[in-house]
Amino acid sequence: MRIGVLGTGIVAQTLSGKLSELDHDVAMGTRDVAALLARTELAFGQTETFAVWHQQRPKIRVGTFAESTVHGEMVINATAGSASLEALAAAGGANLSGKVLLDAANPLDFSQGLPPSLTVVNRDSLGEQIQRAYPQARVVKALNTVNASVMVEPRALADGNHDIFMCGDDADAKAVVGDLLTNGFGWRQVIDLGGISAARGMEMCLPLWVELMGALGTPTFNFKIVR
Amino acid sequence: MRIGVLGTGIVAQTLSGKLSELDHDVAMGTRDVAALLARTELAFGQTETFAVWHQQRPKIRVGTFAESTVHGEMVINATAGSASLEALAAAGGANLSGKVLLDAANPLDFSQGLPPSLTVVNRDSLGEQIQRAYPQARVVKALNTVNASVMVEPRALADGNHDIFMCGDDADAKAVVGDLLTNGFGWRQVIDLGGISAARGMEMCLPLWVELMGALGTPTFNFKIVR
Repeated sequence: MRIGVLGTGIVAQTLSGKLSELDHDVAMGTRDVAALLARTELAFGQTETFAVWHQQRPKIRVGTFAESTVHGEMVINATAGSASLEALAAAGGANLSGKVLLDAANPLDFSQGLPPSLTVVNRDSLGEQIQRAYPQARVVKALNTVNASVMVEPRALADGNHDIFMCGDDADAKAVVGDLLTNGFGWRQVIDLGGISAARGMEMCLPLWVELMGALGTPTFNFKIVR
Repeated sequence: MRIGVLGTGIVAQTLSGKLSELDHDVAMGTRDVAALLARTELAFGQTETFAVWHQQRPKIRVGTFAESTVHGEMVINATAGSASLEALAAAGGANLSGKVLLDAANPLDFSQGLPPSLTVVNRDSLGEQIQRAYPQARVVKALNTVNASVMVEPRALADGNHDIFMCGDDADAKAVVGDLLTNGFGWRQVIDLGGISAARGMEMCLPLWVELMGALGTPTFNFKIVR
């Protein structure tokens, strides 16, 4: 499948690398391609510059937000939550129309230090904001509740015996995302929480995730829903 | 141990009943004892009036918020989150001084219908509000992330193979609560999330809990942290 991945940080790299390994045709989107490839400082969580990372993965295309969105049959929002609406505006509403838009972002505000705050809570969520802004896109919220490495290699953690959540208003779009999660990434169980408004709970559990990371001393963990 | 349980709803009843079975000396606290015992309508989640429930458990004392707090070596806040600060004011700061105060409440606002909103988010929590209001109390947040039945009978769900969270600023108070949870109620693992500010994440995961209850069709489930 042709997939546009918005963002070039650690989440976007991890998703794009795995999708490319799975033989999807991936185009990553950024604001300024030349500036991205010229960047010498390391972004958060990265151990090499984007240019060095990309040299080892020449199959992955790199373009503007709009170019990667045009490329994708599916589009993945892997930008920082604080930058997502701006990135999607640059992607272009017409380019998103009719497409599955997997939103993996969290609306976290780090401006007051750690732990981050959520910029949207209770009766709204980033997932809903995106769906409202682009009503012709078929938004599915997923993957925001785990670390990037767990997103694409769930079986590396406890043999995959844990759960990922998903929500969205379009059942067909959720089926596409569910297939990618299970048959692509290897998730054993995807819990469908319902319509896109369930993004509220999926995003509001991030503070607990941050606390658990501190208590456990690792970001490599996940929730399993025991019943 | 002498334990004061603030509240008389389903959470307070479930905790008090179990604690009494475990041979603790329990006093439940309410605003108006006569009104409580005279009440004929059923409260949320209850299948019998408080008076009928209490007739079957004569060992459990019933008194005012202040009386049950004076009685308790440990005090448990099992009131609705929206009523907790008022109940604790009635309990009396001097009566709470030096005592372990297990806060099991969630600051949920049902005034706009379902799903409920949280009245405190991000850089504050009900647990912190209580600790600030009663600095001489030793507040431990716990049990707010599970249904009442799971609180006291964790082994009835998947043989107890799931986790309960706890936080608080006083290590000795957490040890007392941790002992009650494990040796009293049978929790296999209590995850200590650190100081009372971790109540933020514990409370903000409630919207996800509510969504899961809807998706799974049962309130009898819990999180297990897989690592």
